[in-house]
This record gives sequence, structure tokens and C-alpha cells, in this order.
Amino acid sequence: MKPHTKTTGVVNPELSSGPPASGREWTPVQDSPLPLYKQIADYLTGFIRSGVWPAGMRLPPQRELCRQLKVNRSTLVTALGQLTALGLIEGNRGGGTKVVISPDSTNPAPGRAGNWNDYVEEGTHYPNLPAVQAINRLEYEPGLIRLGTGEPAPELLPGAAMQAILAELAQKPLNLAYEEPLGSPRLRAAVSAHLAKLGIAAPPSSILITSGALQGLQLVALGLLPRGGAILLERPSYLYSIHAFQSAGVKLGGLPMDERGLLTGSIARETRRSQAAMLYSIPSFHNPTGILMDRERREALMAVTEALQLPVLEDGAYQELWLDSPPPPPLKALDHTGRVLHLGTLSKAASPGLRIGWVVGPEPVVRRLADIKMQSDYGASSLSQLVAARWLEGGYHEEHNGFLRRMLRERRDTMLAILQQHFTGLASWNRPAGGFYIWLSLHKPLPLRTLFRTAHKAGLLLNTGDLYDRSDNRHLRLSYAFATPEELAAGLPRLAQLIRSFKS
Amino acid sequence: MKPHTKTTGVVNPELSSGPPASGREWTPVQDSPLPLYKQIADYLTGFIRSGVWPAGMRLPPQRELCRQLKVNRSTLVTALGQLTALGLIEGNRGGGTKVVISPDSTNPAPGRAGNWNDYVEEGTHYPNLPAVQAINRLEYEPGLIRLGTGEPAPELLPGAAMQAILAELAQKPLNLAYEEPLGSPRLRAAVSAHLAKLGIAAPPSSILITSGALQGLQLVALGLLPRGGAILLERPSYLYSIHAFQSAGVKLGGLPMDERGLLTGSIARETRRSQAAMLYSIPSFHNPTGILMDRERREALMAVTEALQLPVLEDGAYQELWLDSPPPPPLKALDHTGRVLHLGTLSKAASPGLRIGWVVGPEPVVRRLADIKMQSDYGASSLSQLVAARWLEGGYHEEHNGFLRRMLRERRDTMLAILQQHFTGLASWNRPAGGFYIWLSLHKPLPLRTLFRTAHKAGLLLNTGDLYDRSDNRHLRLSYAFATPEELAAGLPRLAQLIRSFKS
Repeated sequence: MKPHTKTTGVVNPELSSGPPASGREWTPVQDSPLPLYKQIADYLTGFIRSGVWPAGMRLPPQRELCRQLKVNRSTLVTALGQLTALGLIEGNRGGGTKVVISPDSTNPAPGRAGNWNDYVEEGTHYPNLPAVQAINRLEYEPGLIRLGTGEPAPELLPGAAMQAILAELAQKPLNLAYEEPLGSPRLRAAVSAHLAKLGIAAPPSSILITSGALQGLQLVALGLLPRGGAILLERPSYLYSIHAFQSAGVKLGGLPMDERGLLTGSIARETRRSQAAMLYSIPSFHNPTGILMDRERREALMAVTEALQLPVLEDGAYQELWLDSPPPPPLKALDHTGRVLHLGTLSKAASPGLRIGWVVGPEPVVRRLADIKMQSDYGASSLSQLVAARWLEGGYHEEHNGFLRRMLRERRDTMLAILQQHFTGLASWNRPAGGFYIWLSLHKPLPLRTLFRTAHKAGLLLNTGDLYDRSDNRHLRLSYAFATPEELAAGLPRLAQLIRSFKS
Repeated sequence: MKPHTKTTGVVNPELSSGPPASGREWTPVQDSPLPLYKQIADYLTGFIRSGVWPAGMRLPPQRELCRQLKVNRSTLVTALGQLTALGLIEGNRGGGTKVVISPDSTNPAPGRAGNWNDYVEEGTHYPNLPAVQAINRLEYEPGLIRLGTGEPAPELLPGAAMQAILAELAQKPLNLAYEEPLGSPRLRAAVSAHLAKLGIAAPPSSILITSGALQGLQLVALGLLPRGGAILLERPSYLYSIHAFQSAGVKLGGLPMDERGLLTGSIARETRRSQAAMLYSIPSFHNPTGILMDRERREALMAVTEALQLPVLEDGAYQELWLDSPPPPPLKALDHTGRVLHLGTLSKAASPGLRIGWVVGPEPVVRRLADIKMQSDYGASSLSQLVAARWLEGGYHEEHNGFLRRMLRERRDTMLAILQQHFTGLASWNRPAGGFYIWLSLHKPLPLRTLFRTAHKAGLLLNTGDLYDRSDNRHLRLSYAFATPEELAAGLPRLAQLIRSFKS
């Protein structure tokens, strides 16, 4: 796998079309004496004259502006013509339009700082992959069928239970102050009791509350691994789609998998070759492949990493989301030397937006991570922590997981039936025993970025395999967690047709 | 100022006594047939055999363990004697006690990964200063009078209003999903309206919601500045007490202040000398000095940074907490080219634990920061964002600020009266027009770390000047926001006495 480098070419074109700029709720008034185009021109002039759109910025695509401002293309074009006439913007050969400040405008001359482009490109942290930025943006575009989204659909989230918890909490005095560096003692006690049910013996002092499991990854990357170090992981993996480790200067070393999970035979060789300092794994209902590592493989993994004295970072995000029967115990439950760090989260069942996860590990390790967390954001929301504690204490978690499993089982089976009908001969796939994902293997390779764009035009949002393995050109991560059964029934046949339409 | 380097000597001793390990709520049963010491020995053996206390870890101080386990020293010593006999721990010459695994124990042999010390020292991110770690820990030690804490006392926080908001929110369907990368559109609209009252014209698309203003700093450090770059700032400054910029490889260049704020005369020279890429300032009620930059100085700062094309990062955390009369408008209100990034927060008034802040800036800049935030924690708690939106929309914010100003004014005057009575001849101080802080200037230099420890023994928690300027040896940051008037009346004379007891 090529290391993906941070180049100007990657960063710049995505800037203007980066994460969504919605929230710009202003729209022109229809029955005003001032024509629509004039209202828009005035409004956008304000953006430029106040520096909200600084010199050098590329304007969002016209399509996006039209949608945001709720006007048709010709009105927008007339408005932009006014800005061009004022010397505030100018089209370039590439077809884009940029903010410029002409000498005859009343704006101060632009200069290094008038132009933020250098800054935006200079920071240490990698930007998200353009494809991930596109997904992050398009997830808020209404009307798209999201075939790969890794979160439960709104109707699968426990809205009523959360309202009940809020109503209950509203009756008692609240802690509005900061929580302790490791997180609220009450929540850590609840997580400790919860982990015991999964076979993990973790006193509250060995638990750090994080803003989702993602932050746990970020803290491990920043706090435990040196620049230039390496981490082994399954390939493909969720970890390839984010930049937590790469931005901290840590290399990723991919290991092969089979249907029983990570192949342990290559761990020793790869550890030596890449001087790896840690192994990352998603043993239960792996993201993106849905694979469940069986017990024997887990024991083999623990034995080989024990011999190598290689710490393991276990991502347990999907551990509880089994559909057919409970999975083998987490790796952390097999750990007697404190060699495994375990990540857990409430994002995959209770509420993605609550932003509550945890890292379990030896005390000195979680304290080191807590210290960095204190420097990053001074702890997770105390309100979220309180709600999470009630969620676990009150038995809501078990009850909701039961409901969620039933719903996901139905949706999985719906998806499998549709695949059977429309993708036979086109692709093969697994029958996941839990989690959210089916890893669709196309019989023939395809240009996945082109497929992504074509699908978008056809109203489908895809998570293509290249997000999880840069060199992949024949997989899609399908998720039965987000789209409704009706959307699956409409979207998947459309996808099959699109794939067929590619010349091989 | 010496760059503070990250050395093993700094990291290691703090590990075992790092952030608090409370939440270890287990205590031995008093009326058990098993003696207390035996219960404790068994419990701690479990910690070692499960890797919660890994090989090589230094045990927490006995004093801390006694407090956590609620036993007296002799019981603990007997229990630790058992662990020593089992070969699980051993004392070293330095007086500390470490976890060891002897050959005759049943634990697997330790090795590289059995010993996490290397890992804990290898991460890229700096640990907090030992002094800051100590404060973070001791803030949860009961009974201490906290004379420097930079947050409002629990009784000054709007508990009832927050309960009312929760009760109201419990009536309506909740969004439990992720929010948009820039943050909830509703909250951004509310922040936009709020900023307009401060003179800042910021459409929602130019606002990024963060987990407190601290995270805004972290994102700027990671997203906009290159490794090896530099940022100018007031000296002393809050920014010296955290490692956001240093961990990203960005140097801090301190500039002098007078009672009207940052001295602008040296900005040009220092910008050239250190090739600074940005200037950070807390113009209103500066942390730690309490200084209010006057309007003329603000205009001078804007003019000189405009000429240098130097972007400005304005920390507006205390902007609204004026006590006598409203301060001049924020720097962002004087900015017409998008050169100022403005940080705001609800932590200083509504609720520190809510973890809601914002960064205001040009669209491409906040989108770049949003992209890193998505990679860090996938956004701030949606529940906190919803509560914050209601807080601002519902007028709670203005009402509470009125209350808070009255309370802080009283407490400031109480503190000034006590200082007058007990510190005359010993120190000088300012009369802050807002914020939380009085910057106490001792007439004679003192060894501040020794003062800190002595004060701790006397029941006082201090924020000493060296946190905010490494070379300082004659200042204390006093805060009238946290300690009660009764605590101030008891604690400040005790502090005066301690200071007097130092030989000059």
C-alpha cells in the first residue's frame, strides 16, 4: 500500500467543497421589491467584505449554492455576475470561481493573511481523504439513499428512552462543572459493571471516558506511539479511512484476513519487519468486512502477541451487536497482563450524538491518555456522561440492544434477499453474524471513484472499498443499519444496474 | 524563556501520581471475618494479576491509597507487605514502590509490553506540566481551599435553569444522531445571533462548534500551523500552561504587556525575528493577569497586524464577564478581512461541563478545522449542543450573566478587601474590571514550587505564576470565582502567613 501523502493537490480542491456549509440559513425574500439576484449579490458581498469568504477562496459549486439559497441557477448566475462586475470574484480557466479583491474595490489589499490558503495547507494534521470529506458532506444532502452509512437509522435509536432519562435527570441537581480527568466516577462505575457482563474485569480506575471510541484511537496515536512507529492491523480496516495514526506520524501495516478473522501467521514476521509497536484489531463484526473472529483465532492472536510482547488495541465497537448468537469473549477478557487496550462506545447502539466511549487499560496508560484528553478538550460533556450513566444503570442498554438486534436481523435478511435477487453473478458476499456490514466483492474490478460519482448522480451514497484499503477496486461496504428496507429495495437494484453498466 | 522539553525525568515520576485514580470506589468491608489488610492485599493482587497495575508501574503514594481505601497507614503497610512477600511489588531506594513480577509468581514473565513505561513516554503529545497534573489531581481532593481555580463555583452555576431546559427538551423528539461537521445548525444560528450582540457579524457557516474553547486552540494548532512555526502571545498567558501548540511543534513567542494590554510596539520585530504565523491574545480580562485591553490598544493591535498581514487568534472566553462596564468590542468586531479567528465558550458562565465553545473565522478555515474535528471525535455532544442552543435562544444566557456579574463583583470586592488587610507590604495587585483573576505580584521572589507544596499541606491549592510564564517566581493567579467568601477569608490570611514565613 502506498503511504498516502498530503499534497496541495489533495487539500486545495476540497476546501471550497469540504464539510457542508449548511447552517447558512439565510435565503432571499420572495416578495421583496429588491429582486432576488440583487438580494443574493448584497448578501454574498457581505461575506466577502467581512472576510467570511477571504481572498483566494474558491466559491462552493453553483449547484450547492442554489440548493442553500433556494434559488434557480439563472438567478444565482446573475448575482455572481454582479460580484464579478464589482471585482470581488473572478472565474478561472479550470471552471471554478475565486474570491479576488481588485484594486478598485474598497477592500484592503490582500496579502499573506488575507489569503488563508497557505495556512489551511500548512497544519500538521492530515485532512480527511477527499472521498471521506465528500461522504461527510453528502450525508446531509437530502434525498440520497445511504447504502453504506455506519450508524443506526434514526428510527432505530432510543428516542423515547432518552426522553425518559432527561425527564428523570431534570428532577435532580445537576453537576455542571468539569468531571475528573478519567471521566465521571459514576459513569466509570457503570461502565465497569457493564464490562463485567462481557467478561472484562476492569475497575473504574482502569477506565477512561472518551468522546466516542474515535477519540480513544486519537489519544492512543498521540500518547503511546512515537513518530515513525508502526501499528499492525487488518487489511481492509476502518482505520485506513481515518487519519488518527497517520497524522501522528505512525505507519499502518496491513495483515491479511480470512473468514475466521485476522491471519495470525504473519504477525511475527510483520512485527519484526515494520518494528510494529502495537496491533489494532476489530475482532467482532469487523468494519468493513463484517467478519467475526472465532475463539480459536482469538486465542492464537493472544498467544502470538504474548510471545512477541506486542500490545493489542481492541476495537469493541460492535461486540454487543451480535445477531445470531453472542460472539466469543473480547480479547481483553483473555488478557491477564494488561497487554490489551479495549475500546468501547455507546455510538453504535444508544446514540452516536451522545459522543461517549471508553478506553480500558492499565492505570498508567489510561492516566497518560487522560492527561492528553485534558489538554485536548478538558473531558467529555458532563451531561452526556450523566445520561450515559443512567442509560447503563437503568437497564436501558440491555433492553434497547434486544430491540436493535431484532431490527438489524430483519434488515440484514432483507438486504441478503435483495442481493440474492439482484447481485447473483455480479458479486459475492458474506452473511454477517452481527454488526452493520456486508462486504460486497465484485466479480470484476471497477473504477470505484467513478462508481461513487455515478451512484451519487443516481441518488445513492456509497462507501467504496478504497476507503478501507487504498488499493482496493472491487469492494463496497454495504450497511443494513441505516437505509430503510424500502430504500434498500429501491437502491440496491439501482446499484446493480449501475455496476452492470460499467464496461469490463 | 527556555523551550520546555519533554524528558523522561518529567514524565515518569508523575505517572503513578498523574490524574486522579478515584472511581476506584472499592473499600474493604469492616465487619468481615477476613482482616482488612488481607482484603486489601487480595484486591491489589487482582490489580497486578489482571494487568491493571502492570509490571514496572510505580504505586500511588501510600497517603493517596489510604485515602482511597479508607484505611489507616498501618493496615495498608501490612497489606503491601503481603504483596512484597508474594514477589509482586518491591520497594526501591528512592522510597517508591514498583510492581515487579518475580520468577516464582504465577504471572507470565514481563517484557517490553508487560512494561508500558516505554509507551507512555514515547507518544508525540507532551504530557501536562507536572504542576498542572498536580492541580488537575488535587482539584478532586476534598477539603482544599482552591484560591486560583478558573471556573465558577458550583453555587454560581445555573442549576435550576439547566434543569428547566432538560425538562423542556424531554418533551420533544431528540436528535440522537451525529451532527454536521460544523456543529448543529440550530446552535450555530443561536451563536450567530449571540455574536451579533457583541458586534461580531458571523453567519452560521463561519462558525464551528467545539468541545470548549480549548479544543478550538488544539484544532488551530494542528490544522493551521506548520511544525517549527511560531505564534506570538502575551507573556504571561494561559497558553503557556497548556501544550496545545508545543505538542504540534509550534513555538511560543512571548510579548510584554502593560496595564492597557499587550504592548504593540514589539509585534513587528518579533514577527520577523521568530517568523511568527499568528498572534494569540486574550484582550478582555486576560488570563492570568485580569488585564483589559483598551480600545485604543485594540485598534493599534489591529493596525500593526494588518500591516504585517499577521492573523490573530482572539480568545474571547471572558469577554462577557465584565464587572464594572462593558469592555470595548472584541477584535473580531474590528476585522473586515477575515484575519481574526475568534474563540468563544459557554464554560465560563453557563457550564464548564457542557463542553461547548466555538471558533469563528473565514469559511475555508472553519471547514479545515471541522475536518480535523471530525477526525478527532466526530463532533461535540449533540445533547450538549441542543442544551446550549436552548440556553442561548431562551434568554437564559443574558439573565444568568447578570446574576453572575453581581456575584463575581461581590467576591472580587471581598478578595480585594482581604488583600488590602493581609497583603499590604507583601505584594501588589490589580483591581480587575472583569473575568475571574487577580494577578498578585509578590514584592520578593519566592521558590514557587515549594510555596505550592507548603500551601497544599496547609490546605490551600494555588495556581502559581510559573504555570503562565515558566521563568516567573513572584506571582500568583488568584481567582475570586471559585472559593466561597468564607474560604477566601480563611485561606488568604493563611497564604499571607505562609509567604511571610519564607526567608528572603
